[in-house]
Amino acid sequence: MNTVDSIKILDATLRDGGLVNDFYFTDDFARALYKANIEAGVDYMEFGYRADKKQFDVNKFGKWKFTTDEDILGIIGKKDPRMKISIMTDVGRTDYINDIKPKKDSPVDLVRVATYVHQIDDCIKMINHISSLGYEVTCNIMAISTATDQELIECLNKLVKTNVIGVYIVDSYGSLYPKQVRHLTKLFHDILAPAGKMVGIHTHNNQQCAFANTIEAKACGARLLDATCHGMGRGAGNCFLEGLIGYLDGKKYHLNPVLDFVRKYMIPLKESGVEWGYNTSYLLTGLTNQHPRTAIAATKDKDDNFIEQYKFLSYK
Amino acid sequence: MNTVDSIKILDATLRDGGLVNDFYFTDDFARALYKANIEAGVDYMEFGYRADKKQFDVNKFGKWKFTTDEDILGIIGKKDPRMKISIMTDVGRTDYINDIKPKKDSPVDLVRVATYVHQIDDCIKMINHISSLGYEVTCNIMAISTATDQELIECLNKLVKTNVIGVYIVDSYGSLYPKQVRHLTKLFHDILAPAGKMVGIHTHNNQQCAFANTIEAKACGARLLDATCHGMGRGAGNCFLEGLIGYLDGKKYHLNPVLDFVRKYMIPLKESGVEWGYNTSYLLTGLTNQHPRTAIAATKDKDDNFIEQYKFLSYK
Repeated sequence: MNTVDSIKILDATLRDGGLVNDFYFTDDFARALYKANIEAGVDYMEFGYRADKKQFDVNKFGKWKFTTDEDILGIIGKKDPRMKISIMTDVGRTDYINDIKPKKDSPVDLVRVATYVHQIDDCIKMINHISSLGYEVTCNIMAISTATDQELIECLNKLVKTNVIGVYIVDSYGSLYPKQVRHLTKLFHDILAPAGKMVGIHTHNNQQCAFANTIEAKACGARLLDATCHGMGRGAGNCFLEGLIGYLDGKKYHLNPVLDFVRKYMIPLKESGVEWGYNTSYLLTGLTNQHPRTAIAATKDKDDNFIEQYKFLSYK
Repeated sequence: MNTVDSIKILDATLRDGGLVNDFYFTDDFARALYKANIEAGVDYMEFGYRADKKQFDVNKFGKWKFTTDEDILGIIGKKDPRMKISIMTDVGRTDYINDIKPKKDSPVDLVRVATYVHQIDDCIKMINHISSLGYEVTCNIMAISTATDQELIECLNKLVKTNVIGVYIVDSYGSLYPKQVRHLTKLFHDILAPAGKMVGIHTHNNQQCAFANTIEAKACGARLLDATCHGMGRGAGNCFLEGLIGYLDGKKYHLNPVLDFVRKYMIPLKESGVEWGYNTSYLLTGLTNQHPRTAIAATKDKDDNFIEQYKFLSYK
């Protein structure tokens, strides 16, 4: 079990939550979240993606899909030394050569590079470049429930030779059970820890295991823990920040600022019609270890024919 | 890990769910649930409590609080040999001398006796009497997160001398984390298994661990697994039957009948305004290891002052 002092909580509300509302958060929301995270003792706050504006229509998404340094500075003003700032970049979707300035000119501390296993070599090129600019860098391996141990071992053996500070287990499909998370965390830890690198965990709540999987990963050595306020995130959403901070509430982390933010911002946001969180369709994509896209469509269309959905998802 | 053949799933929707709607289920609902459970391969269906009509006003509750043999027969007609039937009795709240007939005259197979640790001696009197009538009997130890290991060991050492077929870990407060469930399951298993008795698990979802805790208990030897359709149960509710059956779907258990029932009965029931399931107030009672009553009241009153609730619950 890691001590609380050795772990780092990252709030990914603006980023994974942005996948639910096309990143249209108000500045008031972002500022209040920044303040709440600092008061709660959160270690990193993620200010969305830095997607390539040449690939995505800026008129169809809010600014946190393309997060510039100026966008961040517009929210935070002067940087508070108590909390670090991250952005996420996707392999193939970020113009990392042109759109990432040297660290000394940016409020960003950590750049997280999200990749699928098959993109690992391109991912490492990105990691090396971004690291050379002076940033902390992590590698976030998505859809991990579809990868074999051998594939992951090969990725990790490449990643330990880079400057990443950590590598995340990303259960994009919300498919993993606690025992699988423990297995993967140990596998990651055995390779990463000797190289001085951390294991990270990012969960989805399709089978209502997001919080349990996060604390099980922590117990097996994961030190980078992702969560979002009220679990806001794609599809079934993520590990609830209030659950995780509550679990760790004490000297380092403080629950009250998160409770206050949930009350004032997250519950009203959900009541306004922005939709995320567990439902039966998400259960089925998690259960069958598949991308949530069919469940997202079913939820949007209010399609409740779960038997047909299960049949479709189970078709080999 | 237990094989799927060695486990017994009990659907407690009418019973724990009844705590949410004062047991006012329609006969149509009960019949459809009975049919769905049989088709799903569920091993036991619980037809509510057999509470003492001298202690509770029959005009304030539906019949499944007082479940008579005739009530059950009115739903099932002729008994289907594929699924057993249980009722729950509470120590001190059931007139078990007068209200339980010999097994040969009843459709009930299993009588579950719910107790707190401090009531264990009265519980054992009930167990012995009910067992002498020919029923299967279990002991369900409630509010287990408030008991010490030593208290539980004393209870278990008494219970192994009775005819109980199993003893349940009942996490009434939804307070346990997976590691605690594993610890308790092993503790129970070590005492019960040599006596030929099973470990049971009944979870609540206050911290969204109900499903994870159930499958973790199973992995550590629990064979009696409780769940309810769509998690319907007091406060934050229980382990979702569709999650558990989905996890075990195959030769013995079948998910489709549960999915169909959820679609046709549970989602409409919830949409009609019957309220259960995770929210922030329930998180706080689970986190502080307390009875959900304050969260039930807060939910009813739409009180969202979570900081005040947490302060009240944390007060020593």
